[in-house]
Amino acid sequence: MDIFWNKKGTLQKVHHSHLRNSLPQIFREHDKVWVDMPRFGKDEEELLRVYFNIHPLTIEDCSKVSSRPKIEEFDTYLYVVLYGLDVQGHFTQLNFIIGQDYLITVQHRQIASYEALKRDDGKIQALLGRDTEFVMHYLMDIEIDKYFPILEHIDDQMEKLEERVTHETGNGPVHEIFHLKHQLLTLKHHIAPQKEILFALSRKGNKFMMPASTDYFRDIYDHTVRALDDIENYREILNGILDVHFSVTSNHLNDVIKVLTVFSTIFLPLTLIASIYGMNFEHMPELTWKYGYFIILGVMLLIAIIMWLFFKKRHWA
Amino acid sequence: MDIFWNKKGTLQKVHHSHLRNSLPQIFREHDKVWVDMPRFGKDEEELLRVYFNIHPLTIEDCSKVSSRPKIEEFDTYLYVVLYGLDVQGHFTQLNFIIGQDYLITVQHRQIASYEALKRDDGKIQALLGRDTEFVMHYLMDIEIDKYFPILEHIDDQMEKLEERVTHETGNGPVHEIFHLKHQLLTLKHHIAPQKEILFALSRKGNKFMMPASTDYFRDIYDHTVRALDDIENYREILNGILDVHFSVTSNHLNDVIKVLTVFSTIFLPLTLIASIYGMNFEHMPELTWKYGYFIILGVMLLIAIIMWLFFKKRHWA
Amino acid sequence: MDIFWNKKGTLQKVHHSHLRNSLPQIFREHDKVWVDMPRFGKDEEELLRVYFNIHPLTIEDCSKVSSRPKIEEFDTYLYVVLYGLDVQGHFTQLNFIIGQDYLITVQHRQIASYEALKRDDGKIQALLGRDTEFVMHYLMDIEIDKYFPILEHIDDQMEKLEERVTHETGNGPVHEIFHLKHQLLTLKHHIAPQKEILFALSRKGNKFMMPASTDYFRDIYDHTVRALDDIENYREILNGILDVHFSVTSNHLNDVIKVLTVFSTIFLPLTLIASIYGMNFEHMPELTWKYGYFIILGVMLLIAIIMWLFFKKRHWA
Amino acid sequence: MDIFWNKKGTLQKVHHSHLRNSLPQIFREHDKVWVDMPRFGKDEEELLRVYFNIHPLTIEDCSKVSSRPKIEEFDTYLYVVLYGLDVQGHFTQLNFIIGQDYLITVQHRQIASYEALKRDDGKIQALLGRDTEFVMHYLMDIEIDKYFPILEHIDDQMEKLEERVTHETGNGPVHEIFHLKHQLLTLKHHIAPQKEILFALSRKGNKFMMPASTDYFRDIYDHTVRALDDIENYREILNGILDVHFSVTSNHLNDVIKVLTVFSTIFLPLTLIASIYGMNFEHMPELTWKYGYFIILGVMLLIAIIMWLFFKKRHWA
Amino acid sequence: MDIFWNKKGTLQKVHHSHLRNSLPQIFREHDKVWVDMPRFGKDEEELLRVYFNIHPLTIEDCSKVSSRPKIEEFDTYLYVVLYGLDVQGHFTQLNFIIGQDYLITVQHRQIASYEALKRDDGKIQALLGRDTEFVMHYLMDIEIDKYFPILEHIDDQMEKLEERVTHETGNGPVHEIFHLKHQLLTLKHHIAPQKEILFALSRKGNKFMMPASTDYFRDIYDHTVRALDDIENYREILNGILDVHFSVTSNHLNDVIKVLTVFSTIFLPLTLIASIYGMNFEHMPELTWKYGYFIILGVMLLIAIIMWLFFKKRHWA
Repeated sequence: MDIFWNKKGTLQKVHHSHLRNSLPQIFREHDKVWVDMPRFGKDEEELLRVYFNIHPLTIEDCSKVSSRPKIEEFDTYLYVVLYGLDVQGHFTQLNFIIGQDYLITVQHRQIASYEALKRDDGKIQALLGRDTEFVMHYLMDIEIDKYFPILEHIDDQMEKLEERVTHETGNGPVHEIFHLKHQLLTLKHHIAPQKEILFALSRKGNKFMMPASTDYFRDIYDHTVRALDDIENYREILNGILDVHFSVTSNHLNDVIKVLTVFSTIFLPLTLIASIYGMNFEHMPELTWKYGYFIILGVMLLIAIIMWLFFKKRHWA
Repeated sequence: MDIFWNKKGTLQKVHHSHLRNSLPQIFREHDKVWVDMPRFGKDEEELLRVYFNIHPLTIEDCSKVSSRPKIEEFDTYLYVVLYGLDVQGHFTQLNFIIGQDYLITVQHRQIASYEALKRDDGKIQALLGRDTEFVMHYLMDIEIDKYFPILEHIDDQMEKLEERVTHETGNGPVHEIFHLKHQLLTLKHHIAPQKEILFALSRKGNKFMMPASTDYFRDIYDHTVRALDDIENYREILNGILDVHFSVTSNHLNDVIKVLTVFSTIFLPLTLIASIYGMNFEHMPELTWKYGYFIILGVMLLIAIIMWLFFKKRHWA
Repeated sequence: MDIFWNKKGTLQKVHHSHLRNSLPQIFREHDKVWVDMPRFGKDEEELLRVYFNIHPLTIEDCSKVSSRPKIEEFDTYLYVVLYGLDVQGHFTQLNFIIGQDYLITVQHRQIASYEALKRDDGKIQALLGRDTEFVMHYLMDIEIDKYFPILEHIDDQMEKLEERVTHETGNGPVHEIFHLKHQLLTLKHHIAPQKEILFALSRKGNKFMMPASTDYFRDIYDHTVRALDDIENYREILNGILDVHFSVTSNHLNDVIKVLTVFSTIFLPLTLIASIYGMNFEHMPELTWKYGYFIILGVMLLIAIIMWLFFKKRHWA
Repeated sequence: MDIFWNKKGTLQKVHHSHLRNSLPQIFREHDKVWVDMPRFGKDEEELLRVYFNIHPLTIEDCSKVSSRPKIEEFDTYLYVVLYGLDVQGHFTQLNFIIGQDYLITVQHRQIASYEALKRDDGKIQALLGRDTEFVMHYLMDIEIDKYFPILEHIDDQMEKLEERVTHETGNGPVHEIFHLKHQLLTLKHHIAPQKEILFALSRKGNKFMMPASTDYFRDIYDHTVRALDDIENYREILNGILDVHFSVTSNHLNDVIKVLTVFSTIFLPLTLIASIYGMNFEHMPELTWKYGYFIILGVMLLIAIIMWLFFKKRHWA
Repeated sequence: MDIFWNKKGTLQKVHHSHLRNSLPQIFREHDKVWVDMPRFGKDEEELLRVYFNIHPLTIEDCSKVSSRPKIEEFDTYLYVVLYGLDVQGHFTQLNFIIGQDYLITVQHRQIASYEALKRDDGKIQALLGRDTEFVMHYLMDIEIDKYFPILEHIDDQMEKLEERVTHETGNGPVHEIFHLKHQLLTLKHHIAPQKEILFALSRKGNKFMMPASTDYFRDIYDHTVRALDDIENYREILNGILDVHFSVTSNHLNDVIKVLTVFSTIFLPLTLIASIYGMNFEHMPELTWKYGYFIILGVMLLIAIIMWLFFKKRHWA
């Protein structure tokens, strides 16, 4: 648990036992406090329950790893849950409890942006100096912006796939498409529910936030909308690539079968002719002709050429 | 019929004939009563109609096995229908009639969560001690949470299918996909209509429920939304798996046909050559050459090798 | 034209010329009248226009056979159009004109539920005794409930189809699917527009209906919603069955082609060998070997076995 | 430009120069005027701009051939744009400017319904006698009703197609489906935006229209909704027919390939046997058997029969 | 930075240092100013921040190249972002800051319409003479109208494709379809979010715009809606073309395979017969018949004719 207290304009890092005693003073003098809880244990729970007077349902939600994004207004605070990305790139739940003079953040995994901010006293002081909601905005902003490199990576892979799919048959492309669609679904699954939360933050004239800050949250909201737009777009493009893939596969089959057909239809008649003159009838006049063999070879060649031209004309060969 | 009466803080299990007489007292003193009706017969109907003064349409709905989820506000009570899962895992209708001081639950099959609660006097007393709606919340919560193990099971099966589909042709995968989609449709069919019911319970400042309890119902509502989200997600993934399956099937066909084509186009010319030298013409100069046979074998081998290389280059062999 | 007049609590069947004269009295004493018009001719039109003072547009709509479901509020009455099923099972337009003290029903074909009710004086008296809208509710309720046997029949056929589709190729299943989808579309086409009408009847505190009756119409509304839900569900299942059908067809093709490929690739080399030893070269050493013939037969057998094993391993045979 | 002036109940066809002078009197005495502009030139523009005081944007819209349907309320008039069908059956823009006492209609092509009405003085007088909006309603009603013969024609073609598709392969059916879908798209593209316009006319208690007329526009609105419903329905049916077509095509392929497979697998072994006994080995004992030839023919026949039965059993032949 | 100042009705092009000093006078006398910033550097930022008192978030947005379209109302101005097309035909962000008496436009690439307007003093004076929002409308109008030539070009390509797809197999058509869909997606991606912006401008009675101008913005809004309608329409048509393509490809395959099947099934039996009479059995009576050879040739011809007629009847040949 890391606690940052902007005591009359001076940033202090305090211990949580110390915080408990100072809370009445903080609330009286409207000093701003940010309590970050990178893990959620007994102490954290007690602090929330006893000293900040947080509703049991909120505490329960904070302690869980898998909540859906939500925004809930309680009497003395606003409870917001969003997704962030931990250092391994997995989505993880970020809890924000924002009251009149405090911001409490709870998460269950290491978040790079949180750690970076906590090492930057100047930044914290500046943000707390404006208000606790600017700390919240700063953290959310960084987390939402993490989507764009992921989307760009997907875009790159799609472009390569678009290229590959035109000449490659086999199951490679469809697996790739499936994999990318899966990624987009996962992203959408996590981003979509955040849209309405951020819309609420950017609109609602709620009592825990300064009117001035809604403009900032509108900005994050816009980013979320853009990310969702991109996802929808990419999914459509992937469907188009899938159509190309199926068409390429099916045209490839046609090509293979054309080769088979052309070869078979040319060689079957020739083989028949050869077989006929291989029959052992006693009376087969052609067999005794002097140039019979060469005439037949010529006839075979002629048939082959005619059929070839026929297929050539039909663009089969 | 099981009746639990929280008489001035003490839990009592009373007989329904006794309840009938005590009702005026209960209503006067605002004691809380939970009447559970695991079967719905003459007695139950009479109790509802005569003593609790329930509307005939509600009684009719309670007596039916197949109602859609609904929420209906009447003058003296709120009528809610949701789905639960009975001990065989089938969806079944759960009726809740919640008035100022009573909760009546009606269902037609054995529900594990109800039976468990009824054996736990302490729990009932605690819940009734807060209010009848907490009994309702407790039961609904358990029932809604039953969806998640089902969804996880489907998720597991999908993951196996994702693996299987890449190397298995035949109709197995498509049957599996159909089966899973069917399950998801059934789930959605039952869960979707509950969403708006629970939304109403978590929002509506209605007279039969304490404002404090809406936070709890919002929680169940959130779970329902998450379940529906998951279902939609899974359906999309199954569609992706289906695409993979069709691609794998169609590429497999291509592979088989390539083998056929390569074999045919290599052997047809060779057989023609052999047939030609099997002809019985009197004048076939090559037949008398000393090494004619070996030259022809050599020519055949050469043709075979050239064609093989040709197909190799086109990645058909 | 059949007229039922609940004159001070006694049901009377009156002639329409008699009704015309009694109307002022009826309206004055708020007796309830139900006028059923199973055909719509000159007399009926005159009655509506002159005596009940119905708007020309409503009369025009009543006289037409093909109106869309609608609800229109006029100054002195409410005009509702729904679909019913005639005795041949075809959808037909049902018109309801409900004023303060009268219900006029117009339809152009024989409706079983109407005929049954008109033969049951006790029932009519009971319903008119409550109010004219309960006659309307009674008729609508029966008509809406007719959808469910149809849906169940479709469900049965789908189940059989699910079974059939796994082993039957050919166009049979796809025709069946098309036929069932067509039926569902027709149902949806007729039921969907009724939903909002019934919603209006179950909500709207309009002046021609008692507040108490809206609960009853909400019940019919619920049935309509359930029917539409089922239709949507069935359509999804049919799409799933179609996927299975296409997969089965395409796997069957694969199987056929595998047989062709396996046979061809085994016999082509053998035939080549036989053809080679059928050549008439003068110098073919093997031909003079004592066991040449048997050696070659052995070689052929060996090749056949090896290739068979090869295909066996690739699961093609 | 054709001008119809209902001067104190008498219909007058006036010249536009005459109209300009009479306008103040018309407006003062609330006579009703219908100005039809079947072409839009300098005179028409001047009349609108100077004498009727129409907004420049409306005039610009009237002068254009390709506006989207719209309804715009200005200070002194309501501007409505819908689509009509000209005598060649092409969609064309119909402009309606309806003020307190006048209706101005502008279109750029010959519309049959307009011409017919303009030849029918009695009808115009009757309509203007009620109000200018009844002229508008009359024209719109005829135009909207033109959709239904088109839709019926499409329905007929679909029914024929449904029949044809079951036995016809080739690209004919898919072209027909494409063509019909294209037609439906064009219809929808033109009808869909009119829906909200007509909804506005049938609801809005706007100052330029009598309340009584909204019932009439609701009627046209209903027709539009029905047309759109039908279009949606037809598109679904066409998709179903497309599925049937693809299934028929693919089953036909299966049938063709089965014939190929059955023939090949029967004749390949027989040809091998014949080839074997065509080999020229010196020591082939069977060749000298007295009935060798007939035994071998018998063996061939046996193999052929066995294979045929085998395929018969698998329903391939 | 180009500054146009309509000083008491006379257009002046001023330098930005001069503007800074004149601003108080401008604001006092309600002169209209248009500041165009075709690039955004230090000076521009300072002007916005210090002299026009623009919110830091707006300045940040202006400085970025990739914002989503948006409309944001601030205390002293309205901030609008739309897309325009630069001279290379790429979408680029257009920023509009419109206050009581000024319009500031910021973009990062050369826009043809802006450059053209800035060279036309008369036009600027006329527009500024009406109000700054007419400058904004003029610029937006030209940019939105740029979509239609693009859409027409796509329409032309689709028509060619419709033609091509009926006789061309191979992957050409599907690539073309993919390419066109991609273009439509890009267009939609940029146009769709503008719709609501323009709707807001055409509705909202906001304080920075004259009521009279909303009619003009409604016009642009209509264009946007039409463009989106067209895009949706084109996408549907492309899907139809794709269906035709897949059908043509699949029917082509059928045709190729029919040729293969017909040839194989005709020649396989004939070759068998020839092979049979090529066997070397000592006792083959037919071989010694005088006309044996000709009888067999006749039998072969007969078989070939019969099979040909058989396939002819099945429409395979």
